[in-house]
Amino acid sequence: MEIKLAKIVQRLNQSGADALVLHAPQNRRYLTGLRASAGTVVVTSRGEAVFVVDFRYSTAARQALGGSPMACEEVPVEEQDRWVGSFLRGSGCRRVLIEDQYLPLARARELEALWPAELAGCGWMEELRAVKTPEELRCIRTSQEIAEKSLLETLERVAPGMTERQVEAYLTWRLLENGSENGVFGIVAASGPNSALPHAVPTDRALERGDLLLIDFGALYRGWYSDITRTVAIGRAGEEERAVYALVQSACEAAIAAVSGGVSAAAADEAARSVIRQAGYAGFFGHGLGHGVGLDIHELPRLRPGSRDTLRPGNVVTVEPGIYLPERFGVRIEDLLAVEEKGCSRLTRMSRELIVL
Amino acid sequence: MEIKLAKIVQRLNQSGADALVLHAPQNRRYLTGLRASAGTVVVTSRGEAVFVVDFRYSTAARQALGGSPMACEEVPVEEQDRWVGSFLRGSGCRRVLIEDQYLPLARARELEALWPAELAGCGWMEELRAVKTPEELRCIRTSQEIAEKSLLETLERVAPGMTERQVEAYLTWRLLENGSENGVFGIVAASGPNSALPHAVPTDRALERGDLLLIDFGALYRGWYSDITRTVAIGRAGEEERAVYALVQSACEAAIAAVSGGVSAAAADEAARSVIRQAGYAGFFGHGLGHGVGLDIHELPRLRPGSRDTLRPGNVVTVEPGIYLPERFGVRIEDLLAVEEKGCSRLTRMSRELIVL
Repeated sequence: MEIKLAKIVQRLNQSGADALVLHAPQNRRYLTGLRASAGTVVVTSRGEAVFVVDFRYSTAARQALGGSPMACEEVPVEEQDRWVGSFLRGSGCRRVLIEDQYLPLARARELEALWPAELAGCGWMEELRAVKTPEELRCIRTSQEIAEKSLLETLERVAPGMTERQVEAYLTWRLLENGSENGVFGIVAASGPNSALPHAVPTDRALERGDLLLIDFGALYRGWYSDITRTVAIGRAGEEERAVYALVQSACEAAIAAVSGGVSAAAADEAARSVIRQAGYAGFFGHGLGHGVGLDIHELPRLRPGSRDTLRPGNVVTVEPGIYLPERFGVRIEDLLAVEEKGCSRLTRMSRELIVL
Repeated sequence: MEIKLAKIVQRLNQSGADALVLHAPQNRRYLTGLRASAGTVVVTSRGEAVFVVDFRYSTAARQALGGSPMACEEVPVEEQDRWVGSFLRGSGCRRVLIEDQYLPLARARELEALWPAELAGCGWMEELRAVKTPEELRCIRTSQEIAEKSLLETLERVAPGMTERQVEAYLTWRLLENGSENGVFGIVAASGPNSALPHAVPTDRALERGDLLLIDFGALYRGWYSDITRTVAIGRAGEEERAVYALVQSACEAAIAAVSGGVSAAAADEAARSVIRQAGYAGFFGHGLGHGVGLDIHELPRLRPGSRDTLRPGNVVTVEPGIYLPERFGVRIEDLLAVEEKGCSRLTRMSRELIVL
């Protein structure tokens, strides 16, 4: 935490700002480790740091902060904005950064009226969060283990006649039983022709023998997401399904081979995309290769054509190429990778071979 | 839908605004019925109405709008802001209302730069949504039925040794199996001393004989929430637990008797609060009596001390008095009510009597 604070103080000074005020739950958790539905974190360019929480969280907050240089102040929720205003005034802060991608306009205007400060955004918080600490990597690894255990338990149960919504329901239960926090993002469980819709919502369609079933989801462990997609065959897999599967598998492997510190995110995307293009399926991979994963399910860096991001050691990214043949079937295979100085390590343990249930 | 649009046009004209532009998923669903992760709704003071969606949703949107006066335009997500800007320019709209409680500051600033318009908030959308149509009431009733069926199935399984998180996990599974959409709000499953924390998050604490177990949750049906809290006893209930339970039950019944169109929300709160105060537990009911429920789990009206809201026929509200004895136990009982001209009807079917499992 000292290192995170030091980096923030450095960025504040670089950007000529006096303070950073954070309200988003993910950023609160990033700096304090605490899961709380309310609270404010203030960091000044001189290195002062305060976590302002109401009585419900003050005991837990003091425990979470134990030994850290961040102070804890107990203030009722409805008085926190005013308290922070006084603190900023007392510290002579005039230029204050807020989460302008998160705070609603009305709330920002309230703060502007209340604080003696000019407000600006803090886009670089996303950049800081994109590089994970060893402790954060351990959490994501555990989150991924929970996801894979739950997926395997669900696949044991999947059979013709089960609906997509029942797959979603059962998988959700297993996730929570295996230690995931509630709040996991929308599970995709798309079968047959629905698997050709990259962002399908589970329906009441019952699985049939010969279907492909595409499952995309993750767990949430201490606030840290994981992410995995597997496409399995129900009963049997047709010849074209097998061929497309093998192609997506090759594209995924090409991506894994390309991901490394110092490589551009667009180049990693192209590594997978060219495999699909050369096989004649150029028009059927209609989304980016992947994205960063952390306290948000979609974070920096963005792995897609035209991305200006560069992969850095400590990034955790998905590679998830897919081929979608409208009204017929789709295949997506997604692994989670930790970017290293040279190459990457797989956080996904599960095989990428086609499973026929 | 025609009636909703007519009410919006009326409000736009009353507030001297030329157009309303909606981005929040709940408001999109309110006006179109469609569950979509992106899209923009535009309504002008002259009664023009357009739903702007990308290719993923255009077929479903046209079906959902069939026969309504709202037009549908297919525009890629990244071009929708610009498209709406041109539309506003073409319609001569200069004063445009946006969801200032929802749109992040950065996004609002982008729109300000892009649109030839002065932006203001549309707080009255919340007021419109607070009065439910008969069709909306039917959805909430179904949502409540799903919640109660799932609760009963879960209570059949609850026994000493089961953890709070396992209760949460099992209940979540039953909700999804019984037809709830994913995205239900945080389930409270708080046992023993944890039940004294009004907003407890489920923990790994195992249930013990003699515990009270407080469960607060809802389902989500076609976007419509429901809400219920029951406190049950594991194995047996002590004398003080029974006495506090009976008192909360009386407070809940006093609230139900008070809820009626034309009554102030603060008076409904006081009806329950005075029962608890007169029994000497004034300091142990530390939250408001209840809240409106609809496309958001917390909506207007607010039933709490000092509320300026008046209950109106068509409101759907919770009454959920509680008594929390720190570090010992808590009891909360919550019913869901539809406000009528005179009195109210219960959407909750389940008994409020103490269940000893």
